[in-house]
Amino acid sequence: MLNSTPLTKHKLLILSRLADEYRARLREANLPGLEIAERDVLPSDCDIVFGEPVLIKPVMSDLLTANWIQSTFAGVDPLLDPALRRDYVLTNMRGVFGGLMSEFVVGYLLLHERKILQRLEGQKKQQWDATLTGTLHGKTIGLLGVGSIGREVARTAKFFGMTVRGYTRASENSEHIDQYFHGEGLLEFASGLDYLVNILPNTNATRKIVNAELLSRLPSHALFINVGRGSAVEQSALIQALETGAIAGAVLDVFEVEPLPAGHPFWSAPNTIVTSHSSAPSFPAEITKVFIENYRLYVEQQPLKYQVDFEKGY
Amino acid sequence: MLNSTPLTKHKLLILSRLADEYRARLREANLPGLEIAERDVLPSDCDIVFGEPVLIKPVMSDLLTANWIQSTFAGVDPLLDPALRRDYVLTNMRGVFGGLMSEFVVGYLLLHERKILQRLEGQKKQQWDATLTGTLHGKTIGLLGVGSIGREVARTAKFFGMTVRGYTRASENSEHIDQYFHGEGLLEFASGLDYLVNILPNTNATRKIVNAELLSRLPSHALFINVGRGSAVEQSALIQALETGAIAGAVLDVFEVEPLPAGHPFWSAPNTIVTSHSSAPSFPAEITKVFIENYRLYVEQQPLKYQVDFEKGY
Repeated sequence: MLNSTPLTKHKLLILSRLADEYRARLREANLPGLEIAERDVLPSDCDIVFGEPVLIKPVMSDLLTANWIQSTFAGVDPLLDPALRRDYVLTNMRGVFGGLMSEFVVGYLLLHERKILQRLEGQKKQQWDATLTGTLHGKTIGLLGVGSIGREVARTAKFFGMTVRGYTRASENSEHIDQYFHGEGLLEFASGLDYLVNILPNTNATRKIVNAELLSRLPSHALFINVGRGSAVEQSALIQALETGAIAGAVLDVFEVEPLPAGHPFWSAPNTIVTSHSSAPSFPAEITKVFIENYRLYVEQQPLKYQVDFEKGY
Repeated sequence: MLNSTPLTKHKLLILSRLADEYRARLREANLPGLEIAERDVLPSDCDIVFGEPVLIKPVMSDLLTANWIQSTFAGVDPLLDPALRRDYVLTNMRGVFGGLMSEFVVGYLLLHERKILQRLEGQKKQQWDATLTGTLHGKTIGLLGVGSIGREVARTAKFFGMTVRGYTRASENSEHIDQYFHGEGLLEFASGLDYLVNILPNTNATRKIVNAELLSRLPSHALFINVGRGSAVEQSALIQALETGAIAGAVLDVFEVEPLPAGHPFWSAPNTIVTSHSSAPSFPAEITKVFIENYRLYVEQQPLKYQVDFEKGY
């Protein structure tokens, strides 16, 4: 808690589809020394920007005085364009999506294991179906990417009794990962997985990481879930794996082009569910809390939380 | 581990749809002093019976020498018929269904919160749907019955950040229940719940406990899940609540008459999912482990685990 009003006055621009809600929440928080710009004003003298990367990018050339940008999203790809300025602190949203992503992953894994859709078809025919369903317990899940979201998915997978493999650049900082893989270990990581979940950000190293070679290591009962970035997937290879039954299905939340265009083969590929980038809905109360926490650090000239490394891309 | 062969010889009858599998598993376990009766033989001199209550009940009058019956199911209602003998130890299956029931409950809660079915309808029209979905986090779940299964469901609900209420006869032995209710507290227990889950066994005290009065305490967005027994529900009241939209939906795994007869209104009630008593599939490996554990106690003349109280009914 800051009890004294700081000397510096700060000016905040909010660029979000939920700008009105964020403005109301921040007014209510009554943050010391903070002036919040009005709607649809683009103040050339704001020092802080809070919002969605895709809405911030087009006006970056006008935001010359901004020295801190807080993204409301985890993914900040639009702001990583090398043509844009990088002489400011970019922070992304962390710590709020892990639980939601875990719910998403578990929800679709259970849809698959408990054969919920097949059973609903039976119900339409008033057909009592006592066949055994599967369980998450004892299955092996592989997480491509074990950052703050991946660690939470790992913790959830462990709760349900799964064996958890993690593929990361280098870090090994989750106690819920049974086995880590790096670099050349990618194919070994994928071999025999029941579930493959991509949570990687969009970087040069992650592009098309889910390709024909990797998919060929999955057994035919495997389910692939993509909640990372669409660029991680070689589309033609995934569609072929789905069409030939080389894997059992896919749940795709993210795509190279969003919204996914009408007529795209993913819409109608066999055993494929398209979830329209909805895996981790942004709840403004939690997002606002992260901004406020970082604003207090900013006023005190302390290092901000969740800083993005422009080179690494996350 | 028993290392010496006991003097007594025991004779086991298996009455299960999975009898061949159980026989093979028990032969492999090579239990000391145990003779396993052949398939389709009804030995009048067996002292142990292992199987499904519904298959054991019709032959109870021939099982005069049985002094221990181990059920492969949690629910043992057929054997509680007062016309049947009770001069033996009846043990039911516990400790193996909690995780599976929890998966079932979470799977259908997420189907509901994440609007999975509505989104699939959108996908058929190739419709990008970025509307916000709900979350389990912060919701309030009420568990009717907090035995070994209920405690595991409570632990899972807590993992996902829910507030957990428990309604029990008297016991308060789960650290994952935020608030306990008993007896007359039933309506207060139900008031304002987001999710109501029945896990109660079939007893005189639980019959028609989910009636019009209780359902009237639920908000219109509430989901009801029944994984206990069908007798706990007043059918006409539940159907009315579903047809009038007084509650948002129901997931029904158990029914007064099973299989649920064709033409029964539950098959086609609005927002109702019928899951054909599949919530906790019996995995023979785990069931067999419980039998073996109890057999070792039986041979040593120790008290068996999971004994059923014929009066209480569980």
